[in-house]
Amino acid sequence: MTMSERIYTAGLVVIGDEILSGRTHDRNIAQIASWLQVQGIRLSEVRVVPDVTARIVEAVNALREGYDYLFTTGGIGPTHDDITVDAVAEALGVPVVIHSEARAMLERHYTGIGKELTEARLRMARVPEGADLIPNRMSGAPGIRIGNIHLMAGVPHITAGMLDALTGTLEGGAPLLSETIGCWTPESEVSDILRQVEKAHENCQIGSYPFFREGRVGANFVIRSTDADQLRSCVDSLCDGLATAGFDFTPGGI
Amino acid sequence: MTMSERIYTAGLVVIGDEILSGRTHDRNIAQIASWLQVQGIRLSEVRVVPDVTARIVEAVNALREGYDYLFTTGGIGPTHDDITVDAVAEALGVPVVIHSEARAMLERHYTGIGKELTEARLRMARVPEGADLIPNRMSGAPGIRIGNIHLMAGVPHITAGMLDALTGTLEGGAPLLSETIGCWTPESEVSDILRQVEKAHENCQIGSYPFFREGRVGANFVIRSTDADQLRSCVDSLCDGLATAGFDFTPGGI
Repeated sequence: MTMSERIYTAGLVVIGDEILSGRTHDRNIAQIASWLQVQGIRLSEVRVVPDVTARIVEAVNALREGYDYLFTTGGIGPTHDDITVDAVAEALGVPVVIHSEARAMLERHYTGIGKELTEARLRMARVPEGADLIPNRMSGAPGIRIGNIHLMAGVPHITAGMLDALTGTLEGGAPLLSETIGCWTPESEVSDILRQVEKAHENCQIGSYPFFREGRVGANFVIRSTDADQLRSCVDSLCDGLATAGFDFTPGGI
Repeated sequence: MTMSERIYTAGLVVIGDEILSGRTHDRNIAQIASWLQVQGIRLSEVRVVPDVTARIVEAVNALREGYDYLFTTGGIGPTHDDITVDAVAEALGVPVVIHSEARAMLERHYTGIGKELTEARLRMARVPEGADLIPNRMSGAPGIRIGNIHLMAGVPHITAGMLDALTGTLEGGAPLLSETIGCWTPESEVSDILRQVEKAHENCQIGSYPFFREGRVGANFVIRSTDADQLRSCVDSLCDGLATAGFDFTPGGI
């Protein structure tokens, strides 16, 4: 592992009035972020936009060009407010077409339960021209992949199934490693130590995350690096610094 | 209430490597979105960016100009990774100064517990020049308000205290009202009804949110409008449409 190693990045566009209204708590940001970490890809930006075509097009174009990969969540179902496929097609300047494999999947499914493949149901087979399907074992509706863009479901456990199907298929770099040290002390007491230790380890970042629990204040310090040796050295320096200054700390975090 | 009534909008910049790494599940988007709804302000866009000054500056400038109000969460503590104040000052082209009232609050606090106001602790009194404080009852550290920008904490219950302090102080419009109808049926079965009912009520939006529970599929339909009468009329039409087509539904949602 060298410092010149390429860093792979991703953007995420969360599409949904229900997130912006506060009605639904988003769970896809954390889920996709964690999954990307394991693939060696860093989630670098998220935008949450409403169910408005122009707004989706703008966000998709900004993030697909800015990062190696783009993910979207939401808006790929069969109803009138599901406009993600149309918006992504518009962003790419390609038409929307019926995907033959998706159509065949829907036909098998509806024939199996003795129903007709109506136009409404066929909406779920619409893709931007040139797209592939991302299968998922959780439901019949597939995700969609076109270029560096991955269209995922809004329902978190369906998205989980699609991420499963994508595991190992995206090129990534060294995963970002992290270790956590917890301290029952206000972070302002140790800010000088944190700053000095981070400065002395240029390939590591230290994040400080304060908390208030059981009537006491404390903070977790998360040390991140793509290099295991440098991470270890930084963690050791931080522990030494805290011990020398007389602070108790908890390896692994609090 | 008239249709020409002004709609007030807000943007939110969530600052934090811990959200983008998947380590922390964001809870501020839903909290701020719900609070804004009650103030008659619509959350129109969220961007999650890393702890990198240039990225914060870019997001702050895009959203403070695009919406009536801008909120940020995270990065206002005393440690080296707390760079929100500096980034917002840079975005606005003003210097960072020590706020005299914030300094006095910190002096009282540390004198009271027999400690000195060190430079590290004094960091918590830094604000972009011209800013006011947003008090909160949950902790000593205040939020910061400058122009249309509101800098809030990253820790959700501290942000809750700051939102409390801001309640009723921001000019808003008519709150967006909503009603929910639930149905134990795949949304593709009722997509035509949803589309037609929404089309017939131009000041209402209908969102369809599918779910999978207890081995069955269903969906909640959320009807939104700023006009109570039109909302009522749209809900009645949707219930009529569902009943006529033979679907059971649950007012209030499932």
